[in-house]
Amino acid sequence: MGTLADVSPISPMVAQLAKLPGVGQKSAQRLAFFLLSLPQKEVDQFSNVIRDVRASVRYCEQCYNLSLSPLCPICQSQKRDRFRLCVVADPKGLHSIERTMAYNGLYHVLGGLISPLDAVHPESLRIPELLKRIGESMFNEIILAINPTIEGEATVLYLTSVLSGQPVTVTKLAYGLPIGSDLEYADELTLQRALAGRTIVDQTR
Amino acid sequence: MGTLADVSPISPMVAQLAKLPGVGQKSAQRLAFFLLSLPQKEVDQFSNVIRDVRASVRYCEQCYNLSLSPLCPICQSQKRDRFRLCVVADPKGLHSIERTMAYNGLYHVLGGLISPLDAVHPESLRIPELLKRIGESMFNEIILAINPTIEGEATVLYLTSVLSGQPVTVTKLAYGLPIGSDLEYADELTLQRALAGRTIVDQTR
Repeated sequence: MGTLADVSPISPMVAQLAKLPGVGQKSAQRLAFFLLSLPQKEVDQFSNVIRDVRASVRYCEQCYNLSLSPLCPICQSQKRDRFRLCVVADPKGLHSIERTMAYNGLYHVLGGLISPLDAVHPESLRIPELLKRIGESMFNEIILAINPTIEGEATVLYLTSVLSGQPVTVTKLAYGLPIGSDLEYADELTLQRALAGRTIVDQTR
Repeated sequence: MGTLADVSPISPMVAQLAKLPGVGQKSAQRLAFFLLSLPQKEVDQFSNVIRDVRASVRYCEQCYNLSLSPLCPICQSQKRDRFRLCVVADPKGLHSIERTMAYNGLYHVLGGLISPLDAVHPESLRIPELLKRIGESMFNEIILAINPTIEGEATVLYLTSVLSGQPVTVTKLAYGLPIGSDLEYADELTLQRALAGRTIVDQTR
């Protein structure tokens, strides 16, 4: 009596799908059966688009965002505020900020966060490129939009120190209670940060 | 200020991944970033395997399981019990039974369940093929391994009636409490079935 892997002609497909993050053996099987139920033409398109996008995407030469051209659409855009620079760890962070529709400046993608345990040191990130860019441009604010984690804090600390000599304002995202949350369920660290970062309520308004 | 779709070169990839069942826009983005982080060679393999498996998989001519050859490995195997036939709705059901390692007979895949609302009638399923197969073979048990849902029950009822003239024992899976469950949280229907199907505890063992 064979196991699924022995008897199933779809196991190579399942094995590939199970490589995706968060997709276990069972989900991979479900996805495979779904793909088998699609017309061949749609599956061809699915696989071609994935391969082609991976092959054509490169890094923007200025901000290291993902791009199809040497300069990404944000760096090329004439509508963006060229006096603000938002520093993010990776393109995911950039997309998160873009999704807010609340920022209209430029970006710089570090390519990671300082993490000595993973052998990611400041020189493995795009920090020299950041400093060069700041030296050559006229930014008046550098926004550090970096996850409030141990690695993120280490990176913020390092960046704050190397940027301290520069004639720019360095800011970081506010830490505190997420909107819609409940004090009762907030973790101690978040509450500590929310207390420490408390803001004055303007009673005249 | 553009939305993600405007600025991102990966949006075609995200759109394809979001077609997968249970994968929303956000998960699709996460998967896309993961695929972009892989070497091109691995992504090529990922997309080629998916396309090729879809192109090469067909139905077994005997049991309608997924197969690469005219007869699937189970139908070809000399080690399977050829006197037992397990009827399942789809290849997923077949795989579920195989995973138990508790069945060593042959299969018949119906290709769906009777569902008048979805215009799936007995004649849209592989029931004529099943009857022909039963007539030509020497099965002594037909096991109906079909989901205990409305459509499943309708199919079991229909199959039981068309098979009533045949010299075979027709059985169906036991319905009752799932192992590890708690009476307190069992739904009424399951409990009703568990009561109705209660078995005698052999006190001599």
